[in-house]
Amino acid sequence: MTPPIKIAIAGLGAVGRETVRLLKKRRLQLRRRLGADLVLTAIADRQAAREARSLGIPSSVARYSDPSVMARTSGADIFVELLGGYAAPKRFVLEALGRGRPVVTANKRLLAYAWPQLMKASRRPGASLSFEGSVAGGVPVLRAVELSFSGDRILRLDGILNGTTNYILTRCEEGLSASAALREAQQKGFAEKDPSLDLSGQDSAQKLSVLAGLVAGGWLKPGSFPVAGIEAIEARDVAYAREHLGRVARLLASLRFSGSEDSPTVEAEVSPALIPTDHPLAAVRHQYNALLAEAASAGDLMFYGQGAGPGPTASAVLADVFMAAREILSGSASPRPEAKPLKPVSTDKTVSGFYLRLEVLDRPGALARIASALGRAGVSIASIHQDLASDAQAVPVMITTHPAERGRFERARRNILALDAVSKRHCAMRILS
Amino acid sequence: MTPPIKIAIAGLGAVGRETVRLLKKRRLQLRRRLGADLVLTAIADRQAAREARSLGIPSSVARYSDPSVMARTSGADIFVELLGGYAAPKRFVLEALGRGRPVVTANKRLLAYAWPQLMKASRRPGASLSFEGSVAGGVPVLRAVELSFSGDRILRLDGILNGTTNYILTRCEEGLSASAALREAQQKGFAEKDPSLDLSGQDSAQKLSVLAGLVAGGWLKPGSFPVAGIEAIEARDVAYAREHLGRVARLLASLRFSGSEDSPTVEAEVSPALIPTDHPLAAVRHQYNALLAEAASAGDLMFYGQGAGPGPTASAVLADVFMAAREILSGSASPRPEAKPLKPVSTDKTVSGFYLRLEVLDRPGALARIASALGRAGVSIASIHQDLASDAQAVPVMITTHPAERGRFERARRNILALDAVSKRHCAMRILS
Repeated sequence: MTPPIKIAIAGLGAVGRETVRLLKKRRLQLRRRLGADLVLTAIADRQAAREARSLGIPSSVARYSDPSVMARTSGADIFVELLGGYAAPKRFVLEALGRGRPVVTANKRLLAYAWPQLMKASRRPGASLSFEGSVAGGVPVLRAVELSFSGDRILRLDGILNGTTNYILTRCEEGLSASAALREAQQKGFAEKDPSLDLSGQDSAQKLSVLAGLVAGGWLKPGSFPVAGIEAIEARDVAYAREHLGRVARLLASLRFSGSEDSPTVEAEVSPALIPTDHPLAAVRHQYNALLAEAASAGDLMFYGQGAGPGPTASAVLADVFMAAREILSGSASPRPEAKPLKPVSTDKTVSGFYLRLEVLDRPGALARIASALGRAGVSIASIHQDLASDAQAVPVMITTHPAERGRFERARRNILALDAVSKRHCAMRILS
Repeated sequence: MTPPIKIAIAGLGAVGRETVRLLKKRRLQLRRRLGADLVLTAIADRQAAREARSLGIPSSVARYSDPSVMARTSGADIFVELLGGYAAPKRFVLEALGRGRPVVTANKRLLAYAWPQLMKASRRPGASLSFEGSVAGGVPVLRAVELSFSGDRILRLDGILNGTTNYILTRCEEGLSASAALREAQQKGFAEKDPSLDLSGQDSAQKLSVLAGLVAGGWLKPGSFPVAGIEAIEARDVAYAREHLGRVARLLASLRFSGSEDSPTVEAEVSPALIPTDHPLAAVRHQYNALLAEAASAGDLMFYGQGAGPGPTASAVLADVFMAAREILSGSASPRPEAKPLKPVSTDKTVSGFYLRLEVLDRPGALARIASALGRAGVSIASIHQDLASDAQAVPVMITTHPAERGRFERARRNILALDAVSKRHCAMRILS
């Protein structure tokens, strides 16, 4: 019998605990498929002793309070990072990779911000880095994107990569207010207590960096591409889009690839978009995630499923552990090719229609000045809709434009928001066909 | 520089030709990702010389008319089988595997019928067998099903695995007759000239065998599970389902897994089903394919895309070639664990509602006898709808049942079709919630 493969897990939060549970529950299945046992031999957690007790982890499993010490001294074969945060996971992962060990993580923030360093460290003999759980939870999109298009060319990716914002937007379709939908998501455990990373689009942006890194083999640095969230979207925007435009709102994380294999060009963006109700991503509701891909030969593809939660993420982590174990047993590793710098091109020339909801003081000439600002920027209006003023306050005005360059639309938006009669509170979304 | 990896391709039909083209077109990309060149060194085709000329294949590439001779004498590193048919591909694949070489095929019929032999041969040192292109074309469902749930448990799979039948059913929703939709599919090149393998459900059944083999590690022998096609479905069934039941018809290939890892139990079935319009598979239209999976930890997942065609299939074939090349370079292979026999359990006890359209001669008492046959079998009627008789001919009667065991429904169906007043022409579908 092949000697067992020793697993060390850092971080016993919800995902870490579920991974420990699954490792035990699926032990026989894993052994049969692998031809060797996967055995938990070390855990690291600030409260390692307490967590070990509550999980029924036997005393033969070494306990560490400092994950980096575990990486140095536990002698494990595979290291799993589920700590959360940034600095501590980074030290731990680099320590383990530096010792030529495979590492599995689900930490999208770590990956997005430390990509070049991590990729370099993972090319050390014996080392490898896998992170299927970091994007779209239990849906194996990363393995597909990395392995299944080796002889094909991915042209574009559009993802719904954040369950909280998708839950809010789709519950608004069902009649809830955005704030009531957020509270509901928090009660159901989909949304964090502090949901700002989700609502601002930053969570989706980190996942987009990971996807871009795998497809184009380079680092899409956070902050180097435009990111907008859903904070400004209200139930009435969703209702207006449905009734007047036949569309639904989704927070899309988008990549467009062009250029050659050696100098790839990527257009990256996270922002809310209005898509037709028969668009494949319109069927993605509540906390579900999805990734729509267009490949040169394979055509359109979509991957869909539970984007987060301890079960789906632990399932993805364990699949990565299994693959790493298989590579240990076969004595091989498949290092990723060297990363190239990846400079996102400006989206100023990207063309789409736009939706703009403004709050306008009911002053004579206000609408004319708004229309004129759009006209001066070269953006042509497709429709304009003004609600009746119920009192002397600002009234909402909904504008849609014909397809226009984003740069032009942004210029018009800035000029409109500088008008006295227009409140800074507003909502803007791409309109996709 | 690592020496090039030599590829031999048997069969230069549409998929074979597209594979040759892609291999050339993506040569730099493949080299960069692999660290070695993939070079076509041999082709086998009954008209090898002519095809080589029309594809611009250089004269340095060896030409064979007999693929088995190519397997024995070409000295290639990886063999690709795209011959079509059964006997010749089987000889060729077993010959190459027997020589310890990796083989890539997209031949679902070969896989479904020769599974145990192929799996055994593929465990020879150096050999391996990959076949991503055999199910759902360019959608990487097999890699996902085989690799991404190693520590999870797949509980059920429901697939739309045949583009022709899905095209016909969804075009019927759009108002075409079944025969007009078939002609259209043939004109567009989705459907074969002889579509009987597709329409009868046998094509889907072969793909279901492949899926079951990967998930449960055993052989789901063709003929060992119930298979029904869409031949009896008419546009009026689709219209009735839409109007009266709020459902759409899809030809579903379904697997339900239970039992333990060591003695898995599987319920397998291919048959048309009526599913709610908000079901994820209802959004799968025209020639698209999809696979809906339920995993114990990962939850519901769906994979969706172009199920066939030279581009998508060649994309999948080339991804398999790439993976095989990577294993050659790393000196490793990951043989599949030994196959266990897989005995599908009877679906007699499977419970669902049923839809039954009969052609009934307008004789007194006919409806009473039909209702009585259902009652005697213990199947309770949910609705019954009789069209007005426009002349003295048979009139259609649409019946839906409450959830009932399939065995009971089948007994009732046999007894009803034996009635004098009922024509043998009829249509039956599962109703799923």
